[in-house]
Amino acid sequence: MTQPSFDAWVKGVLARTEIALDAILPPADCAPTRLHDAMRYTVMGGGKRVRPMLCHAAGEALGAAPEQVDAAACALELIHVYSLVHDDMPAMDNDDMRRGKPTVHVQYDEATALLVGDALQSQAFIALGRPTLDAARQAALMRELAYASGSLGMAGGQAIDLESVGRALTRPELETMHRMKTGALLRAAVRMGALCGTVGGVLEADVDAALDAYARATGLAFQVVDDILDVTSDSATLGKTAGKDAAHDKPTYVSIMGLDASRKLAAQLRRDAHAALTPLGERGARLAQIADLIVERVN
Amino acid sequence: MTQPSFDAWVKGVLARTEIALDAILPPADCAPTRLHDAMRYTVMGGGKRVRPMLCHAAGEALGAAPEQVDAAACALELIHVYSLVHDDMPAMDNDDMRRGKPTVHVQYDEATALLVGDALQSQAFIALGRPTLDAARQAALMRELAYASGSLGMAGGQAIDLESVGRALTRPELETMHRMKTGALLRAAVRMGALCGTVGGVLEADVDAALDAYARATGLAFQVVDDILDVTSDSATLGKTAGKDAAHDKPTYVSIMGLDASRKLAAQLRRDAHAALTPLGERGARLAQIADLIVERVN
Repeated sequence: MTQPSFDAWVKGVLARTEIALDAILPPADCAPTRLHDAMRYTVMGGGKRVRPMLCHAAGEALGAAPEQVDAAACALELIHVYSLVHDDMPAMDNDDMRRGKPTVHVQYDEATALLVGDALQSQAFIALGRPTLDAARQAALMRELAYASGSLGMAGGQAIDLESVGRALTRPELETMHRMKTGALLRAAVRMGALCGTVGGVLEADVDAALDAYARATGLAFQVVDDILDVTSDSATLGKTAGKDAAHDKPTYVSIMGLDASRKLAAQLRRDAHAALTPLGERGARLAQIADLIVERVN
Repeated sequence: MTQPSFDAWVKGVLARTEIALDAILPPADCAPTRLHDAMRYTVMGGGKRVRPMLCHAAGEALGAAPEQVDAAACALELIHVYSLVHDDMPAMDNDDMRRGKPTVHVQYDEATALLVGDALQSQAFIALGRPTLDAARQAALMRELAYASGSLGMAGGQAIDLESVGRALTRPELETMHRMKTGALLRAAVRMGALCGTVGGVLEADVDAALDAYARATGLAFQVVDDILDVTSDSATLGKTAGKDAAHDKPTYVSIMGLDASRKLAAQLRRDAHAALTPLGERGARLAQIADLIVERVN
């Protein structure tokens, strides 16, 4: 059987993720309607869906059927979107635009934005409880997602980010922050996809190590490219406010290393990501293509 | 074997919940320290721990060992505390005092309060992933907790609460709001405790129905008493701002029915809760005592 081209594969993942998210979120006409409307406003029809892509690619690599990966892919995206909604609020980054439209607290109000984020986090775990996988894998997915989202993962990285505004971070400090803030969930995306293809929710050690090395390089590359785009792109292309790191005096790879060195670092991380996949052979092809996509993206 | 008195039993649950929460939360000296410090500040050493009590009592009724119930009891309390932290923020109730001390956004700052709530929700699911129960029960607990916390449970109830400020609610509307805002998590506390004592995370139909009727009556009684205390008690006794429902023009049982009728309703709900437990026989004794405690409490 011929494999679909990468473009076709990406389109397929985007389409099935949209359908799965629609099925997982309560209908907009279900009470409380304003909350459900706002949840759909921020989740549906936007975003690059990088985490669902990583999740499906890793699932495919381990032999999971796409139907077995949808719930995990949606759960990851719901956690990611909730973090954006809260991150954009006035108490945090105070951003007006996201994915090319007004942020939730602008379009609705602050209290709604707070509750939308809270409810989306719960919804992620509701998604994992869908009966497409056995309990062993559901429990393993819950552990991965909760840990990656919490104070030693994404939320902790946000806290470090807040503390670092206006401070000069060293590169290792910057890396720790990003490893938690965005890296933990990207790593979880890879691991959760792979877990969907296991028996009993346990990964073999060599696969585990290969995926971890891949996720580490890819996650860091994602952030380096984000920092590059923040200074080289414009708000219309990004769908969010460009130049905001500099405006907020936030340490970035570009501010620490300069633009040229950041570009070289991104290229090196892409090579690292490819090399990490060697033990997976042909099964790692989609993951390699996603690393390329992440480094070559323009928004 | 003689059963401990109810007072001794309550003290035992409070003590073991404190120890279990301490074990589940990351240490305060673990980075990010400000976040972990704030999480402990708001979780440890305060609160009535009603949800852990309900959870342990239901667990005991179904034959679970207390060690098998601790994780679920902590998870429920973590969800409850996160909701208080976010509810107290300026965008919501804008409250300065909680459990007798300054609220998190007052003691720390708004961004930290936002992240503390977010991280506590994740921590609840981290707690459920502890290896004291098999995967079947972990997955069942995740489903209960996520559903009770989300947009069709607690967060949804908060949204309806926000929309109802300054509006005249009918008593059925008020009940729907409370059934979601506080009732869903209290019901989850009973069900999750019971699930800890099952094989494979499945409750028998008659036990399920009895516990549901009990949880419904007890949850409503809890709210009616809350509304009574808001007008009859003072801030020092409550550990939070008294009279705030009237100040915020929020509909309550007292504002809709008057004080006397509210007291009669609480007494009736207590009788309903006791009656609901009949199928459980002696095993329901602790749950009946908790219904008494909830109706007789002074804060």
